Amino acid sequence: MSGFDACDSFLADCPARLTVELIADKWTAVVLYGLSKGPVRHGELLDLIGGISRKVLTQTLRRLAAHGLVRRHAYAEVPPRVEYELTDKGRDLLPIIESMREYGMQWLNADGACTSAAA
Amino acid sequence: MSGFDACDSFLADCPARLTVELIADKWTAVVLYGLSKGPVRHGELLDLIGGISRKVLTQTLRRLAAHGLVRRHAYAEVPPRVEYELTDKGRDLLPIIESMREYGMQWLNADGACTSAAA
Repeated sequence: MSGFDACDSFLADCPARLTVELIADKWTAVVLYGLSKGPVRHGELLDLIGGISRKVLTQTLRRLAAHGLVRRHAYAEVPPRVEYELTDKGRDLLPIIESMREYGMQWLNADGACTSAAA
Repeated sequence: MSGFDACDSFLADCPARLTVELIADKWTAVVLYGLSKGPVRHGELLDLIGGISRKVLTQTLRRLAAHGLVRRHAYAEVPPRVEYELTDKGRDLLPIIESMREYGMQWLNADGACTSAAA
């Protein structure tokens, strides 16, 4: 935690807070999570993530792509195939999300869909 | 990242997302950060955190206390002294906030008030 000492005053645009904003959206963490194992198609993500609508998933993926966290690949096939994958910038968020998952299980009595991990 | 494999589907109440909600408020990360070195008085926090108003700091501290992240100590002195300190539950968020600070400096071109740490 040496970084703390270098920071004697904090502003609202502190780097930690900008990162919070990046992942504060309701679906960001779970969508990044869903992309963590490799490229995935829109429909596969839809099946993977409980409770998200097709429209909201599309909006979330667009926002993540605009922030450079996700890359969209459209393959010129019949029928057309579109896949999404994490960029390096997106992948670097995964350890943070994983730490937050562990914190949630320890302190927030949360197991959600991850009951097997919590057992 | 072994936890990922245990989780085949994700819901909105995934533990990671509950943790995101806990720290998503604009001031939570910086206030926890400001308490990281030990008990601090309200006025000291106000000086430490740029841009926060007295009222918003009070509201934030109340919310953090309600979530069990911060403890309030009122000393029966003249003049009365009130200090705030992190609980274990609050302290366990610090490594996550520190990881987010590092991420922000690497990927979001953020240095904010932490220019000496970014140098």
